[in-house]
Amino acid sequence: MLLLRRCHSLTRLGPVGTQRYRAAPSLASRAVRLYSNRRDDQRSYQHANNGASWKHIVAGLLTGTGVVLTYGLHHQEVERADAGLSTTAESSCLPVFSHNEVTKHHSLEDGVWVTFKGGVYDITEFVAMHPGGNKILLAAGGALEPFWALYAVHDQDHVLEILSQYKVGELRTEDLKKRDDAKSLDPYSSDPERHPVLQVKCKKPFNAEPPPEILADSYITPRVLFFKRNHLPVPQVDPASYRLNVEGLPGGALSLSLEDLKTRFPKHTITATLQCAGNRRSDMNKVKQVNGLNWGISAIGNAKWSGVRLRDVLLAAGFGPEVAKWARHVHFEGLDKDVTGTAYGTSIPINKAISEEGDVLLAYEMNGEDIPSDHGFPVRVVVPGVVGARSVKWLGRIVISTEESSSHWQQHDYKGFSPGTDWKTVDPKSAPAIQELPVQSAITVPADGAVIDRSDETLTVKGYAWSGGGREVVRVDVSLDGGKTWQVAQLRSGDEGQPTEPSPPPGQAWAWKLWELTAPLPPEAKELEIICKAVDNSYNVQPDTVLPIWNLRGLLNNAWHRVKVKVTED
Amino acid sequence: MLLLRRCHSLTRLGPVGTQRYRAAPSLASRAVRLYSNRRDDQRSYQHANNGASWKHIVAGLLTGTGVVLTYGLHHQEVERADAGLSTTAESSCLPVFSHNEVTKHHSLEDGVWVTFKGGVYDITEFVAMHPGGNKILLAAGGALEPFWALYAVHDQDHVLEILSQYKVGELRTEDLKKRDDAKSLDPYSSDPERHPVLQVKCKKPFNAEPPPEILADSYITPRVLFFKRNHLPVPQVDPASYRLNVEGLPGGALSLSLEDLKTRFPKHTITATLQCAGNRRSDMNKVKQVNGLNWGISAIGNAKWSGVRLRDVLLAAGFGPEVAKWARHVHFEGLDKDVTGTAYGTSIPINKAISEEGDVLLAYEMNGEDIPSDHGFPVRVVVPGVVGARSVKWLGRIVISTEESSSHWQQHDYKGFSPGTDWKTVDPKSAPAIQELPVQSAITVPADGAVIDRSDETLTVKGYAWSGGGREVVRVDVSLDGGKTWQVAQLRSGDEGQPTEPSPPPGQAWAWKLWELTAPLPPEAKELEIICKAVDNSYNVQPDTVLPIWNLRGLLNNAWHRVKVKVTED
Repeated sequence: MLLLRRCHSLTRLGPVGTQRYRAAPSLASRAVRLYSNRRDDQRSYQHANNGASWKHIVAGLLTGTGVVLTYGLHHQEVERADAGLSTTAESSCLPVFSHNEVTKHHSLEDGVWVTFKGGVYDITEFVAMHPGGNKILLAAGGALEPFWALYAVHDQDHVLEILSQYKVGELRTEDLKKRDDAKSLDPYSSDPERHPVLQVKCKKPFNAEPPPEILADSYITPRVLFFKRNHLPVPQVDPASYRLNVEGLPGGALSLSLEDLKTRFPKHTITATLQCAGNRRSDMNKVKQVNGLNWGISAIGNAKWSGVRLRDVLLAAGFGPEVAKWARHVHFEGLDKDVTGTAYGTSIPINKAISEEGDVLLAYEMNGEDIPSDHGFPVRVVVPGVVGARSVKWLGRIVISTEESSSHWQQHDYKGFSPGTDWKTVDPKSAPAIQELPVQSAITVPADGAVIDRSDETLTVKGYAWSGGGREVVRVDVSLDGGKTWQVAQLRSGDEGQPTEPSPPPGQAWAWKLWELTAPLPPEAKELEIICKAVDNSYNVQPDTVLPIWNLRGLLNNAWHRVKVKVTED
Repeated sequence: MLLLRRCHSLTRLGPVGTQRYRAAPSLASRAVRLYSNRRDDQRSYQHANNGASWKHIVAGLLTGTGVVLTYGLHHQEVERADAGLSTTAESSCLPVFSHNEVTKHHSLEDGVWVTFKGGVYDITEFVAMHPGGNKILLAAGGALEPFWALYAVHDQDHVLEILSQYKVGELRTEDLKKRDDAKSLDPYSSDPERHPVLQVKCKKPFNAEPPPEILADSYITPRVLFFKRNHLPVPQVDPASYRLNVEGLPGGALSLSLEDLKTRFPKHTITATLQCAGNRRSDMNKVKQVNGLNWGISAIGNAKWSGVRLRDVLLAAGFGPEVAKWARHVHFEGLDKDVTGTAYGTSIPINKAISEEGDVLLAYEMNGEDIPSDHGFPVRVVVPGVVGARSVKWLGRIVISTEESSSHWQQHDYKGFSPGTDWKTVDPKSAPAIQELPVQSAITVPADGAVIDRSDETLTVKGYAWSGGGREVVRVDVSLDGGKTWQVAQLRSGDEGQPTEPSPPPGQAWAWKLWELTAPLPPEAKELEIICKAVDNSYNVQPDTVLPIWNLRGLLNNAWHRVKVKVTED
């Protein structure tokens, strides 16, 4: 019966397939990007983002239901054998396609092809039936495995059965097996594989963020989707020989193995949002060019971090009232090094490090599993409420000091300046190193440039909101008319339908809130400028516009987030 | 010789005086206000503020030097006898004037008359020579004593000698002696006397702020100038019988006398800024009417507060690890009561109250002297970094609780709402009670509507900046062109030429910073829109405009502060 369906699919879709080898519209560039190594990925995605073909994706996201994000990449689960899906070209009577041919089918216009375990599937007609909406298009022109691994709902027999109906061919054996066996001398050659959905800002060092439209689907950001912000190659750390050195305290250096950390200290878990200081830099670039990676709105994520309190380790290493008299800063040094041997390093003030309420962790788990190598395996710092740059990954060394870290990242980078300061006049000493971050929010749905059908009558706007320093977000205002009028969004601290996290004590609200507003479409409007702005429990608010907070490094953009959408009559 | 000078003055100025009984221009209304009981004081001051006659005051302020603010009202010092100034009408050959006649001479146009110890002086010609600039006009039409008490530089013999030259008459005996002996049943009849320079927003309860142009003259705000924000009549508290009751702890209530507080606990001093949540409400009223006192930019002040740590008192009363498990809030109740016997009350979170770094004081001194009755004699709470409303004055009772205070001021007032919320839709439970305040700054000089001479070539802009939660202000940006370009102001934590306060530990920056920018006058500009905006060390910034943070109670206005000035060719 499966075979019959397969032949039916072939008959039905074969000719369409050949007709579709045509121009690549905006969405195409996006699909190609999923497997591309090109450095201009980000540009092509931005282009796609503004294209009219996103109309369909947005519509799908707005109506999509039932998609459950899992908290990891479940390779094992999806790699089990299935009944009706062949795994090599040789075992099938169907035509054989190259990887390149598959990638050309990445839109509703050109057909939506995907591969799965060596099979090629034309799922164009299934897109409208997909319970998760048009999110399925994220995989168009490429492999399904990474997406199914992410969305565990696919891990069911009937899903494979549905897929089998759309098989149109087999993937060429050499493409299936293709792997880069030639390890080069490239220091980045040991970097881990990453999820193809990530939008790559820089490959070496690896910097990438998830697509905004899926960022707020899950209160806890899956590890594979969590933005990656590496300053250097990912170090290969053997957990058995790993040592953390704690220095600068009266008793001499303390050296701790991973086992020591896991057994000698109580395990502590916090849910905390980390955000890159450059999050939303692309909006600064739009008003005036800055230096730095062109981050969108997704250089932020929320995870459950488990490990030991830095405080407990410092106390065990000899921190006490005498040290408190002179100690002012705690330095962190990573095991990631540049070609000169200089490690990534930075510092935080001692009061944050030693305070019980500061909740600074030396984390060995992220979302209940070992920290992935991109996020600092085996041990990283998590400084909640503080700019991501201080949460040093692959932690090798802790030093108690009277002074701030002298590293480039502490003294010269990650500082904010006046909009009037340029590269000729900038004095890094004039600004403090960024620690706590200001109140922030962004709209994840709809996307900028989306097209809304007038017949929908209502519009749902979604996003995230967070503030630094443990300040809880207490309100998000949303405007559908460019800031003339405002409505209050619903906030939540958990996934829809799931129990929310208990309210944190004052000053310990480390996790973001997701928010949502469903409101009638303003009558007669042809275009909407949608804006969000958050308020934290210190009643700090976001500034209206980008230009007055513009700074030469493009950091700290927390201006109102704005997206424009078109409204069309059906 | 003094008599000769006096007669010369009389001859010279007498006829001018009679000519000057004419129209009262805008400045006149201001001067009258200094001694007026009218409820519309505030309106008349606003009018004055925009009037062209402020040109002269502003010019004076910009060039004024040498004025030293003292930290209290030195009645004693200025009440000593002097050689040449007669004190009653009877002892002089000069004409006798009524108080009403004197008040009519309150501007350069109508002559500037002042009284001092029963003498009447026409100081019109001296105004241009006054080392403190046109600030002298603040006293025009009234008594000099309160101003000389404030500016201790006048407490010198040669100042009295200069003044004597301008004597034109004596004050009528009944006006000199005039006192309201008839104590009424008015609950406010025992309220203390206040400095006449204060701009009264409401007399009963008394609410007033100092003129903005003198607010930032002193890093430590003199007690008499510190804004007064009373919710109820000022209670008369006998320090000998005063008791502070601490309740809700396992050992039963603790009752402490003023002597107990002063002798049983270490004395602790902090410099902390207090700000009313309604500071700058008048700018909200300009965009849309709100409910509340029409505060200008001076409902903020910075003082040295000495007393005992709340933490120490709570520990002495039995606070310990067991209490910490359930205690969540600390209530404060004042001795000020309304007609139903309800006392002013409010609460703060326990972690702020008990933390060593929280620095919450039960203060019995302000600027090194007993707390004045308007500010809570004999003991008040000072919750640094937090809205003024929580710093309960005339403290009578402290209660440890699992819940917030149920008072009106905690549950219904002092909360922030969305601009879209009106009196029909407002739900007080939807917003948290204001505790920490957002980053703030304002321009104190020049005043809105001031006129600048093009020949000045440079313009000096001054103001204050502060942030809640102990977050230090790290930068103030100033624009002279309505926000197109920005320059960085100089910050200081002390008076000009004085040693600045040492930098506070992170999270304990309770005091404001004063700032100043001197920049070339933009060429050819006929009008300048001057803007300031501050950044704190969490890199929170002020929002650009008022409307999007407008709220029905007119609280929390921290939008950029803007003043417009005219530039005229000389």
